[in-house]
Amino acid sequence: MKVTVLGATGYTGMMLLRILASHPEVERVTASSRSYAGRTLEEADPGLSPQALQNGRIAPVVLGPQDALRDPGDVVFSALPHGASAETCAPVLGRTVVIDLSADFRFLRGDLFRSAYGTAPPQAEFQNRAVYGLCEWYRDAVRSADLVANPGCYPTATLLPLLPVLPYIPKEAPIVVNALSGITGAGRKEKLNLLYAERTENAAAYNPGRRHRHAAEISEQLQRETLTFTPHLVPLKQGMLVTTTVPVTDTGKALEALRSRYRDEPFVVLTGETPPETRHTRGTNLVRIGVDVADEMLILMSAIDNLWKGAAGQAVQNMNIRFGVSETAGLQREADL
Amino acid sequence: MKVTVLGATGYTGMMLLRILASHPEVERVTASSRSYAGRTLEEADPGLSPQALQNGRIAPVVLGPQDALRDPGDVVFSALPHGASAETCAPVLGRTVVIDLSADFRFLRGDLFRSAYGTAPPQAEFQNRAVYGLCEWYRDAVRSADLVANPGCYPTATLLPLLPVLPYIPKEAPIVVNALSGITGAGRKEKLNLLYAERTENAAAYNPGRRHRHAAEISEQLQRETLTFTPHLVPLKQGMLVTTTVPVTDTGKALEALRSRYRDEPFVVLTGETPPETRHTRGTNLVRIGVDVADEMLILMSAIDNLWKGAAGQAVQNMNIRFGVSETAGLQREADL
Amino acid sequence: MKVTVLGATGYTGMMLLRILASHPEVERVTASSRSYAGRTLEEADPGLSPQALQNGRIAPVVLGPQDALRDPGDVVFSALPHGASAETCAPVLGRTVVIDLSADFRFLRGDLFRSAYGTAPPQAEFQNRAVYGLCEWYRDAVRSADLVANPGCYPTATLLPLLPVLPYIPKEAPIVVNALSGITGAGRKEKLNLLYAERTENAAAYNPGRRHRHAAEISEQLQRETLTFTPHLVPLKQGMLVTTTVPVTDTGKALEALRSRYRDEPFVVLTGETPPETRHTRGTNLVRIGVDVADEMLILMSAIDNLWKGAAGQAVQNMNIRFGVSETAGLQREADL
Amino acid sequence: MKVTVLGATGYTGMMLLRILASHPEVERVTASSRSYAGRTLEEADPGLSPQALQNGRIAPVVLGPQDALRDPGDVVFSALPHGASAETCAPVLGRTVVIDLSADFRFLRGDLFRSAYGTAPPQAEFQNRAVYGLCEWYRDAVRSADLVANPGCYPTATLLPLLPVLPYIPKEAPIVVNALSGITGAGRKEKLNLLYAERTENAAAYNPGRRHRHAAEISEQLQRETLTFTPHLVPLKQGMLVTTTVPVTDTGKALEALRSRYRDEPFVVLTGETPPETRHTRGTNLVRIGVDVADEMLILMSAIDNLWKGAAGQAVQNMNIRFGVSETAGLQREADL
Repeated sequence: MKVTVLGATGYTGMMLLRILASHPEVERVTASSRSYAGRTLEEADPGLSPQALQNGRIAPVVLGPQDALRDPGDVVFSALPHGASAETCAPVLGRTVVIDLSADFRFLRGDLFRSAYGTAPPQAEFQNRAVYGLCEWYRDAVRSADLVANPGCYPTATLLPLLPVLPYIPKEAPIVVNALSGITGAGRKEKLNLLYAERTENAAAYNPGRRHRHAAEISEQLQRETLTFTPHLVPLKQGMLVTTTVPVTDTGKALEALRSRYRDEPFVVLTGETPPETRHTRGTNLVRIGVDVADEMLILMSAIDNLWKGAAGQAVQNMNIRFGVSETAGLQREADL
Repeated sequence: MKVTVLGATGYTGMMLLRILASHPEVERVTASSRSYAGRTLEEADPGLSPQALQNGRIAPVVLGPQDALRDPGDVVFSALPHGASAETCAPVLGRTVVIDLSADFRFLRGDLFRSAYGTAPPQAEFQNRAVYGLCEWYRDAVRSADLVANPGCYPTATLLPLLPVLPYIPKEAPIVVNALSGITGAGRKEKLNLLYAERTENAAAYNPGRRHRHAAEISEQLQRETLTFTPHLVPLKQGMLVTTTVPVTDTGKALEALRSRYRDEPFVVLTGETPPETRHTRGTNLVRIGVDVADEMLILMSAIDNLWKGAAGQAVQNMNIRFGVSETAGLQREADL
Repeated sequence: MKVTVLGATGYTGMMLLRILASHPEVERVTASSRSYAGRTLEEADPGLSPQALQNGRIAPVVLGPQDALRDPGDVVFSALPHGASAETCAPVLGRTVVIDLSADFRFLRGDLFRSAYGTAPPQAEFQNRAVYGLCEWYRDAVRSADLVANPGCYPTATLLPLLPVLPYIPKEAPIVVNALSGITGAGRKEKLNLLYAERTENAAAYNPGRRHRHAAEISEQLQRETLTFTPHLVPLKQGMLVTTTVPVTDTGKALEALRSRYRDEPFVVLTGETPPETRHTRGTNLVRIGVDVADEMLILMSAIDNLWKGAAGQAVQNMNIRFGVSETAGLQREADL
Repeated sequence: MKVTVLGATGYTGMMLLRILASHPEVERVTASSRSYAGRTLEEADPGLSPQALQNGRIAPVVLGPQDALRDPGDVVFSALPHGASAETCAPVLGRTVVIDLSADFRFLRGDLFRSAYGTAPPQAEFQNRAVYGLCEWYRDAVRSADLVANPGCYPTATLLPLLPVLPYIPKEAPIVVNALSGITGAGRKEKLNLLYAERTENAAAYNPGRRHRHAAEISEQLQRETLTFTPHLVPLKQGMLVTTTVPVTDTGKALEALRSRYRDEPFVVLTGETPPETRHTRGTNLVRIGVDVADEMLILMSAIDNLWKGAAGQAVQNMNIRFGVSETAGLQREADL
């Protein structure tokens, strides 16, 4: 496959390059970035390995998005911000497979997009052609999609443990989600509140309640309106930990639904009552899910690497599904110690 | 005042020494530690300032607990583990004011202690003479107490925002508490899971549901049995962040109750809708409380330094109350940037 | 004393406010910041304690520099960048005591300033009236100075251990200095390379050899040209560790010179052969100095908090000296555990 | 190849498992650990991926060392402590290829081993049959070795940049090495000084001067006695940064020697004047070397991952060389962002 990565110098784009550089089915990668257009990839991302820089697979010069999309290859990954993503990809939508890591095509209901992002959903004619790329749940639709809306990191980590047990959660019951995110989740931006000195040895919630845009995305997927979603920033570079507390009507059946649903999923690890640790997902496409029962309450604990299963890894998983290669191709790695 | 610190080489004990070293009403501090008995304080705790080591207020040699309790002074702080604490303090209970930072005297109901700690409550005759030292709520009782049970860090951070709004939480409603703790909360123990390499850039829940011993302490204080308490370890040396999600019958009244209850408390800072950050409590006796409303749900966010308001700081606050000196004496510090 | 702090919302300025807020000899603090002029101090620095914000000592509204300097009080601390500092302070130079934390007045030789900073030394007529405020070495001169050039953090940590042994280092011998700095040393700037995700779990040298501007400052103070100075960034919020390797003609005399020079200095702690740890200086004005001998080589190890003894703390120490109050006033704190 | 890993539950052993789990030329891995013998590998190392645990390549049960060595396969990696390593491997020495990651066989001169480690070199008859496995320098000897002494992490990071320029360093000139190590370099030990709370946001030298055992190893390899080696602990999980300051007789020739020596080495990246960052080696077998010239002084800066090129990665590289497979097999990974 020949692939183009838009936004290649953000954290998600950089991770896409790292994964694609050694993907066995990828023969050409074009890196695109507005700010680094015309400069060498080595300059743009000096952490890439000498193999990646010299094996001829990744073009040695970064292109501007227009130039890159002139010959986009088989698939375009867009790691651009919402709004810019749909706009930049417009020329190739419907012509080349696009895997969009922004929020631009994630919503079914335009009003929800509008209230979360403040504008009408962009590229209206493509909105209903996009498939929500939560691989373990929309795999079949992805197989024939030309536009995949790669889920947000919080929705990925929240939905995967929650969806199988949803039938056992009473309709009006509160769904309480507390999430911890690594700082790369906020992007590679020159902002004061992302500085090392502001975040090391510091923890805080942000956008509590239902204010985070990902809360709307989760709610739509759950088709529930009783979500209380509180995200927190903690001192992690990569990693996401979600703790979901819900009442269930039948704990035994709920646990069994979780187990049977994920029995054969290569990227889902059930840790039982042992709480999952983010380090054991770092650098991998895994979601690790633990679960505890306290009377009729279920505590679901899920860990992912926000840049892997929460972004670049799942995007490549979607590519693998879409192009019919092994779903785990290029994605089997060992986690951090 | 003349004070004795038992367990002076654990994190809580070390913090007690640091606070007491410059406390304006303290004239003598005796440091006690079984493992360092007979060695110099400088050896036991090389981070103490030259002033603390040389101003004559803190004895330069560490004593064993028996030796220290021979002349305990006006107040004994026990930073020993539960069980050992009550046993070691036995000779002075009822004779000297004891501020016990362990769990030994925190429970009103012996059965709750037993099920959380696996033994009968120690020193039975003193169990009902102990006052639960959550200063802002039991100040009057502390004034005349000879035995203060200093609250746990999780209970302190959870109860302070929750108690004022409790009347507005329906009796059977779920109280969902998610807590993040700094690693010093686990004590200064040579354990594999506390190593730097196991905890940096890593987050995980532990003892989820209602299994943590502090859950029992919180439940007893709330007199509610609908608590779901999930503690997490995140990469913080000091700091605790608690997010509590509860339905309330009247959000306006609940918010007003919180505001009016803490209007004049020197160590409580209400941050309104701005989520509190642990760094802004680090090195201080403050609790910072933020609150958000999502329909009928209240999200209470509270931050403390687990070694200050969660342990040593509150213990000194209790001493100040008990001895009738200014409640803020020795405790007014600026937080980390 | 009445004091004005220019640049009050950078890390050094914020630390000045924290120290001055409880300084026993300070009765009024005016905080100035161009970017926050007209807004409340609480908004500009939400981490300040309620006491600091409400005790009436610090003005509740941030002023622009011009407004602040209209009534500067007894002393102006300038935590502005070089260039801007001299220019902004110009109206009060010679009229009010100025303690300048920038490099603008640190050099005796204008050519050295010019080659390090690329411009002529600003405010030429005041260049030779400035005293280099390395307190332990220029105390007498500071007593009568109206303009104190507060030393850089690297020079402070390097010169303090080195100056006493300098007579025993052969004139042409190489002086090899390797320094580790906390990230706050680079200022509170919205720069990519200061982001949490770029600096956590990462170490690197920068400006190696003699290229860092502080190398020129150190060389001038040493009056030696054989310095090789390599600074590094490591994952510390605050803290600086300097390891200096030099040959000496007589190790015994060199060690004795170090000991006797600092015997009575309140902020200098000699740790002997035990290497000093940065955590034991964090939040204090201490320099901790260890020393090791390997044949005829001396390894000097010095630790400071870059924002305290390396900036704000030493600046207040200079104020104390200049105004004849106790040199330790407001500066005696216990370090981090 | 069939391989056995002794000491599989220390950090180096765990990393060996992770690398070998997906090594294309390895068909069987036996994990051995005294403390986990008889328990499942998943229990011993829950961070391993489901593929590693289930692909049949790694035995699912941990064996004790005696059991493991009964059928050791083609190569034994020993990640045991010095002393224990030689003793445990004794039964297979000379019969199976052994790659020893301890210090037991690293020294040519027994007196140096004795003075560094306090005992005579173990297994005397094998001492002169061991090859020092610094791959880029002893590759030919490794090809036919049955016993490879894998170098220490500090020696690896120090020698690689230094050896090419050694001819240009005057014989009696001081060689000043300052090294920063990640905490995993100290092993997975339940020690107080390795706790998160003792090491986060903290930096300190240890064993300064020439006291660290690795100083003897470096000196022997350099055949110089003018080394001053000061190691430091900084808050890194994995990573090592070495800064070496030396005078050279001809900077141009020295730089050219460095360049030409490593032109074709797959794991050596020369970064020129750009200082290398440890994050760009994290999780890889790379050494990144930068160099700066200040008059006649050379500043060599080298970064490795202490668990990869400094231990497990280089050990696998040695296996690749010894068994004639591609030297980079199983070792080409992308670094951390």
